[in-house]
Amino acid sequence: MRFFSDNAAAAHPAVIEAIAASNRLDTAYDGDAYSAQLDAAFSDLFETQVKALWVTTGTAANCLALAALCPPHGAIVCHRDAHIEVDEAGAPGFFTHGAKLMLVDGPGAKLAPDAVGAAIDRIRKDVHQVQPKALSITNATEYGLAYSAGEVGALGETAKRHALRFHMDGARFANAIASTGDRPADVTWRAGVEALSFGFVKNGGLNAEVLILFDTSLADEIAVRRKRAGHLASKGRMLAAQILALLDNDLWLANARAANAAAQALAGAAPDRLVYPVEANEIFLRMTPEEAASLRAAGFDFYDWGAGEIRLVTSWDSDPETVEQLAKAIAAL
Amino acid sequence: MRFFSDNAAAAHPAVIEAIAASNRLDTAYDGDAYSAQLDAAFSDLFETQVKALWVTTGTAANCLALAALCPPHGAIVCHRDAHIEVDEAGAPGFFTHGAKLMLVDGPGAKLAPDAVGAAIDRIRKDVHQVQPKALSITNATEYGLAYSAGEVGALGETAKRHALRFHMDGARFANAIASTGDRPADVTWRAGVEALSFGFVKNGGLNAEVLILFDTSLADEIAVRRKRAGHLASKGRMLAAQILALLDNDLWLANARAANAAAQALAGAAPDRLVYPVEANEIFLRMTPEEAASLRAAGFDFYDWGAGEIRLVTSWDSDPETVEQLAKAIAAL
Amino acid sequence: MRFFSDNAAAAHPAVIEAIAASNRLDTAYDGDAYSAQLDAAFSDLFETQVKALWVTTGTAANCLALAALCPPHGAIVCHRDAHIEVDEAGAPGFFTHGAKLMLVDGPGAKLAPDAVGAAIDRIRKDVHQVQPKALSITNATEYGLAYSAGEVGALGETAKRHALRFHMDGARFANAIASTGDRPADVTWRAGVEALSFGFVKNGGLNAEVLILFDTSLADEIAVRRKRAGHLASKGRMLAAQILALLDNDLWLANARAANAAAQALAGAAPDRLVYPVEANEIFLRMTPEEAASLRAAGFDFYDWGAGEIRLVTSWDSDPETVEQLAKAIAAL
Amino acid sequence: MRFFSDNAAAAHPAVIEAIAASNRLDTAYDGDAYSAQLDAAFSDLFETQVKALWVTTGTAANCLALAALCPPHGAIVCHRDAHIEVDEAGAPGFFTHGAKLMLVDGPGAKLAPDAVGAAIDRIRKDVHQVQPKALSITNATEYGLAYSAGEVGALGETAKRHALRFHMDGARFANAIASTGDRPADVTWRAGVEALSFGFVKNGGLNAEVLILFDTSLADEIAVRRKRAGHLASKGRMLAAQILALLDNDLWLANARAANAAAQALAGAAPDRLVYPVEANEIFLRMTPEEAASLRAAGFDFYDWGAGEIRLVTSWDSDPETVEQLAKAIAAL
Repeated sequence: MRFFSDNAAAAHPAVIEAIAASNRLDTAYDGDAYSAQLDAAFSDLFETQVKALWVTTGTAANCLALAALCPPHGAIVCHRDAHIEVDEAGAPGFFTHGAKLMLVDGPGAKLAPDAVGAAIDRIRKDVHQVQPKALSITNATEYGLAYSAGEVGALGETAKRHALRFHMDGARFANAIASTGDRPADVTWRAGVEALSFGFVKNGGLNAEVLILFDTSLADEIAVRRKRAGHLASKGRMLAAQILALLDNDLWLANARAANAAAQALAGAAPDRLVYPVEANEIFLRMTPEEAASLRAAGFDFYDWGAGEIRLVTSWDSDPETVEQLAKAIAAL
Repeated sequence: MRFFSDNAAAAHPAVIEAIAASNRLDTAYDGDAYSAQLDAAFSDLFETQVKALWVTTGTAANCLALAALCPPHGAIVCHRDAHIEVDEAGAPGFFTHGAKLMLVDGPGAKLAPDAVGAAIDRIRKDVHQVQPKALSITNATEYGLAYSAGEVGALGETAKRHALRFHMDGARFANAIASTGDRPADVTWRAGVEALSFGFVKNGGLNAEVLILFDTSLADEIAVRRKRAGHLASKGRMLAAQILALLDNDLWLANARAANAAAQALAGAAPDRLVYPVEANEIFLRMTPEEAASLRAAGFDFYDWGAGEIRLVTSWDSDPETVEQLAKAIAAL
Repeated sequence: MRFFSDNAAAAHPAVIEAIAASNRLDTAYDGDAYSAQLDAAFSDLFETQVKALWVTTGTAANCLALAALCPPHGAIVCHRDAHIEVDEAGAPGFFTHGAKLMLVDGPGAKLAPDAVGAAIDRIRKDVHQVQPKALSITNATEYGLAYSAGEVGALGETAKRHALRFHMDGARFANAIASTGDRPADVTWRAGVEALSFGFVKNGGLNAEVLILFDTSLADEIAVRRKRAGHLASKGRMLAAQILALLDNDLWLANARAANAAAQALAGAAPDRLVYPVEANEIFLRMTPEEAASLRAAGFDFYDWGAGEIRLVTSWDSDPETVEQLAKAIAAL
Repeated sequence: MRFFSDNAAAAHPAVIEAIAASNRLDTAYDGDAYSAQLDAAFSDLFETQVKALWVTTGTAANCLALAALCPPHGAIVCHRDAHIEVDEAGAPGFFTHGAKLMLVDGPGAKLAPDAVGAAIDRIRKDVHQVQPKALSITNATEYGLAYSAGEVGALGETAKRHALRFHMDGARFANAIASTGDRPADVTWRAGVEALSFGFVKNGGLNAEVLILFDTSLADEIAVRRKRAGHLASKGRMLAAQILALLDNDLWLANARAANAAAQALAGAAPDRLVYPVEANEIFLRMTPEEAASLRAAGFDFYDWGAGEIRLVTSWDSDPETVEQLAKAIAAL
């Protein structure tokens, strides 16, 4: 009964079916009939003309975008706990050719305009210090908080004022949207976001993520960078087909709602243990090692998260019965 | 009736089944039960202890290996028509941080020890010129020739003499082995090869290639580089499962034999038109534009390959009847 | 009356004379008779066999060393206020191809073994997090503190325990040695340091720094990297000649002692204002904006250093009379 | 009696004097009074507003410019014998983060529009092949030929048509101008050149080269890249002072004329041995090993240049008597 991570969950059956259905000869790379539908599908979803490029990992989506948004000699402002800083093996440094991450603090891995502005103000405007050129936020954050459209918009203003390009790591964008009920457009391009890593792998996909470019002028360069990074799969149709299957009838949203609902069930079992409000599909709980051990003895798997805390992650396929068992076990501690 | 490229072919049904079968919760990345079998499976196949890492594209396999074998300030000796030079968008330069490709000529995109040695001898041994540090050959070559074990061994000697690390791009390694009947060990590590990009995508796989490390000490560094390049898929079990399905009962070899047989059928139809001997699954034919047009009018698709030449590529699922039709059409020109 | 920085000071007359004396035809690059003397000269000074390569800036010295000591996918542990982090425009990221700086705190920009160890222990040992591969300290530190041989040795032990390569940024190494009276060997290779950026430009040189390699096996690779970074000057003899002039009769040490003595004179004027002990040639003083303004009105130039602090830097040619005037002016505040 | 290379020649006495004269405290880096004069001085010389940045080597000048003109995923068209390809240790790959050099042939290391156009036409316009983004020519060429303003202009047209940025490596720009008598403006920006590496080191300077930016919008980025590459010397005034000394009274032109005249004297001694016309200060002669040996026995030093050829290089300080001796010795062979 694993509550380790959503990225290890199964793919949705509709995704496997879509792969099988696309399994016939077609044009290679992204020249196929499935890939050709992505721009239009996401333009509909985001209510504006976008370019949508499939990639196979969130790290690739994030770093291809950042490489196009920040020069090698620039800095990317992000949260100290951002995935790009903590868990991508230095991939931003690789893709950008050495750009720096400029780390900013904030509760729940969320960035606030003031903190971003203050960090930028500490940089001397000379050639000796690396100048910030881009801003990257994660939505939902690494601690499961969802940005409101207003919050993103305020950061967008900050970015504009300091001439920073603006990227959103949306590995759990679906969970954020399912949580806030915001229109995807409001929390992205209308708020100043220029590129979005839209995650599907944690939400029912097999290995397809999508990089959404609201600044469509970035698309040609990123397409070259994707190939150059070895990320232009020859059977791209099987990536595009997965995504189309998840877009169909808003399956992506249904999946995210299911994961969020499971998280709420767990959060409700221990409101006083919560380290952060539960707004997506991650739950951080205060818990003694003994308590954690007793849950594990009962068959539940999860990560410790620093001293005296644990992390639980639900996913689209979290079994309601198992979730209920865990909720009861936590409540009973 | 497409004879454009094997990389656009369908995946083998057994591969799709293997993906579906692996579609349940397991440990993420390469910590799953499928990935755990790869080292042993390929160690059996190659009759020595190897490390086997899945990646999703041949470009990634090639370039991760080259980055580990050649420092940023070194050069990789390869053929002027090598895929890494011609068709990977400069990916070797990206992964190696700027290493140079040192181009050598040879008929049929094949390298010979003399030509390699002569190119190296032209380099002054000082800090002003980029020094060769690695050798990379493609087997089967970009023109469909298969290296014999003896030929690779002679290049391995050359590499050793000049202190070059030795990489083989085996995007069509299966076709080469099916052609020569050599033991995989003989044409790789026994001949001095230290890393092999073993291609499955062109031969029935969906999106899984394998990097085989005969120098197993490279594995830890390459695992880090794989993550850093955004190539550590979170559901790696679905990559490993594909490969295991293709290894099962030597399906990979059966697939390659089918592709090669189709190529022989086409070659037999026009022995006097052949630009190169047909040893794998690519056929290069001399053909006037008018002849090519008449074939296309009959429904056959393929690439022109320079002036007065065309390229046909067969694959594991080339339909025998279609192949026979094409053979007849060529013979009738 | 400038107390901005020692790097803007004049070169020592002996250095200008040495340049003029070397101004005749000789072999280009580092093949000349002056450059040929460096290894021996520094091997004498450090009481062990070293390789000594001239470069023209401290940034180049630091980053060439770091690139050889840390792979692109590794991290360099350094102080949060280290010059390589704060004032080199991201040069370490450029030279190392994207390695990360892992920032550690400590009073006076000094690193302590415990803090280094704790930072390393926070890194998970997996492919998702960048692993530390090198340690870099600055001696004297950015706040003018000198490491004792024992302190460096303890860091050397820490480095060894964690398999980190060990670099010292010695832009003000001369001032540190002049301060502690340690033998250069004791505070470097005997304490585990493998590469030292030995600064001369701030200490009477014109544009020659020296990279001292105690691990002499690094020399060939670094020589290539130096050329590749555009740092192999064609008239290297004029760099080597400067250094030899400063080594002659320990002029480098006399210069550093003069700068340190000037710093002591200033420190003595305001012991209660000192932010850090003055151990080299930098003095950080608590001072109100009004006080600072009055000093400036009296003709003294210097940097503010955060709120309520100023920085004074002395150099080999600080005029004793001017120093005394400034000391009096400070005392009189 | 060395005829190896002009880069090993002495600096002009006026240059040494200028260094000595600038040897007093001033603002560090390029904030000094000397550096501040460069933009105006070169704007005068080139009859248009330019930005002029000192650097210490030609490799740095070339590669800083190329990094600003070509993205990491692009290619730089240049001659197969260009210095950036042959003799800079892969520095363009380092500075540009992996851009490719696209090699074109042409007699005397000179590029012609047709050859450039043909090479570009061979590149498929897709993401699999590296697309050309910049053109770099050397003037005078590596074989001592000078481009006329018309020839550069024709290349400028080609560059424009293919959307290539245009760089000129002018390590021996002075010799080219001295040879053709063209106005510097006509052979550079009026012909489409956007950045010029203007060499002084081979022509009487000590260690100062200048990067001239006709596209002045590149200056800010290149200033950052210069710092990041460790090329922002702290006593930049001593670089600027050298250059101003050489500009004064057109000393640079007088020096180049002297070198060229010496070359003509040698060329005149053996018109039938010349491999290329002598238009600058390099002379390539057909010569048997025995003949070369006899010259060496007479005390003349020079490089062999392939089988049966030698290279002689004259410089601003070539002693007329020695030149005459060599001319006689050659004529007498």
